[in-house]
Amino acid sequence: LSIPSIGVFDSGIGGLTVVKELFASIPHARIVYFGDTARLPYGTKSVATVRRYAEEDTELLLQHNVGLIVVACNTVSAVALDVVERLAGTVPVIGMIEPAAHEAVQVTQSGKIGIIGTQATIASGAYESAIASAAAAAGKTVSTYAQACPLFVPLAEEGWQDHEVARLAAKTYLMSLVEAGIDTLILGCTHYPVLADVIQETVGAKVHLINSGAVAARQVHAAHLAQTVNDADHLFMVSDLPSRFRTLGERFLGRSLPTMHEVVFKEAWILRRSA
Amino acid sequence: LSIPSIGVFDSGIGGLTVVKELFASIPHARIVYFGDTARLPYGTKSVATVRRYAEEDTELLLQHNVGLIVVACNTVSAVALDVVERLAGTVPVIGMIEPAAHEAVQVTQSGKIGIIGTQATIASGAYESAIASAAAAAGKTVSTYAQACPLFVPLAEEGWQDHEVARLAAKTYLMSLVEAGIDTLILGCTHYPVLADVIQETVGAKVHLINSGAVAARQVHAAHLAQTVNDADHLFMVSDLPSRFRTLGERFLGRSLPTMHEVVFKEAWILRRSA
Repeated sequence: LSIPSIGVFDSGIGGLTVVKELFASIPHARIVYFGDTARLPYGTKSVATVRRYAEEDTELLLQHNVGLIVVACNTVSAVALDVVERLAGTVPVIGMIEPAAHEAVQVTQSGKIGIIGTQATIASGAYESAIASAAAAAGKTVSTYAQACPLFVPLAEEGWQDHEVARLAAKTYLMSLVEAGIDTLILGCTHYPVLADVIQETVGAKVHLINSGAVAARQVHAAHLAQTVNDADHLFMVSDLPSRFRTLGERFLGRSLPTMHEVVFKEAWILRRSA
Repeated sequence: LSIPSIGVFDSGIGGLTVVKELFASIPHARIVYFGDTARLPYGTKSVATVRRYAEEDTELLLQHNVGLIVVACNTVSAVALDVVERLAGTVPVIGMIEPAAHEAVQVTQSGKIGIIGTQATIASGAYESAIASAAAAAGKTVSTYAQACPLFVPLAEEGWQDHEVARLAAKTYLMSLVEAGIDTLILGCTHYPVLADVIQETVGAKVHLINSGAVAARQVHAAHLAQTVNDADHLFMVSDLPSRFRTLGERFLGRSLPTMHEVVFKEAWILRRSA
C-alpha cells in the first residue's frame, strides 16, 4: 500500500505538533500541510462555519494528490469529520478524537478521564461519545469530566507557556478536574502540548496526559507504508502570514520547515440567514 | 446634511463599544453594523489579509445605503483606512486612529503618551505617525511608548475582566509604560474598554485613558446630522454565531440588540504566492 502523500490540515499552526509525531514515526512520508491562518481560530466558531471551512480545506488537500488525510484539528475532528470523510471518498481519514479516546480508556486506572479542548470541541460532546464506545468495547466503566480552556490557544501563541499567567489560567480551568480525581487527561487541542509542562504541574505528576496528535500519528504509522521522499518534496500551505508560521512553527515542530506557500480565497459576501 | 445611515464595521464584537457611544451621542441615527465573526481576530493577521478583509467589509456596508462609514476596528484603521476611503468614494470615512491621537496630544501634560493595541496596530506605527502630526500642529513635544497586548482580546471575550489572570497580564504588558512615566494611554483596540478597570488600576489613577472609539464617535456627532429612526430600523450583520454575538454584545453595548443577520462568503481557494 503506497501513499502518494499524507495530507494534514489544521486551523493554523497547532497541527504541526501532529506533523512532528508523523516525522518521528514515518520519517520518509511526504507531508502536504494546510494551516488556515487567515481564518483561525476555529474553536470559538459555530458548527456550521467549522463544517464549511473543513469542506474547503479538504478540497484544497484533495487537489494535491493525498492518499490519506489527517484532520490535525480537534475542533474539525469533533464537529465535521463526516464532512471530510464524505469528500475524501476512498481516501482514508484519521481524526483526533477516536484514537485519543481509545488510549484514555486503555490507560485509566480510576476510570476518571478529564478532557480539555476548545469551546466548540467541548460543546460537541464528541470525546464523551467516543470514550463511551471505547469503554463499552473494553468492558470498562468510566466517567468523563470536560472543560473548555479558551485562553490556552492565545497563551501558546503568545509564547507564555512558562509564564505565571499560564499557571494561573491552568489552575482556574483545571481545578474542578483535579477535585474530581481524574487520573488521565486528554489534551484535546493541538495547541495544548506546548503547555504540557504547566498542565502537568497543575494536575499533578500522577495524572497521565494524552497528546491526541501523537496518538493519532501512531495510528497512521500502523496503518500505512510510505514512500521515501526528500525534505523539499513536502508542501506546506497557509492562508496568511507564511513567515510568522515558519518562525513560530519551528517551536511547534522542533525542526526547520521547508518553503511555505500561501493560498487565498476568492470571496463575495452573500446573505445567508437571519437569527 | 441628511444621513441615510451610519455604517460601522469591526472584526467582531469590539465595535459595539463604538456603537454604544454613537447611541449615546446620536440616539436617533440608524446603524448598519457588520462584525466579521467568522474570520476574527484581525489583529494577529497580515497587512495584506486585513486589507483584503477591509475591502470586502466595506463593499458589504456600501450595499446597504450608508452615508458615513465608521471603521470601528483599530487594526483596519491602522493598516487599511486608505482601502476603505478609496472604495467609499464620496462617503465620508472615520477611523479610530486620528481622533484618539489628536485627543492624546491635547490631554497630555508630561508629553509622554502610551499606546496599546493589537500586534498589527502596534507594528504599523500608525498611532505614532498620527500623534507626531497632531503634536506638530499643536506645537507640542511628545514621546510615545507602544505595546502590543495580544491576550487582552481573548481575556475580554472570556469575560475575565475582573480575574487575577487579567491583572497579571496587564502588569506584564504595561510595566514598561508605567516605568516610562506616561500620563496618557490610548486604548487602541475596541475590546480594551471592557478591561478599562484593570488597566487603570495597573497604570495608576493619574494616567488618563483614551477610549479611541468614544473619541471617534464624538467626531461623528460633530460632523453629521441624523434622521430619526426606530430601533427596528437598525441592521446588525455578522459572519458567524449571531446568537453568541447578541448575548456577549449586550455586555459590550449596555443595552439590547435588534434582530441579528448572518452573512457568509462564497469561497474557492486559489494559490496566491510562495514565501
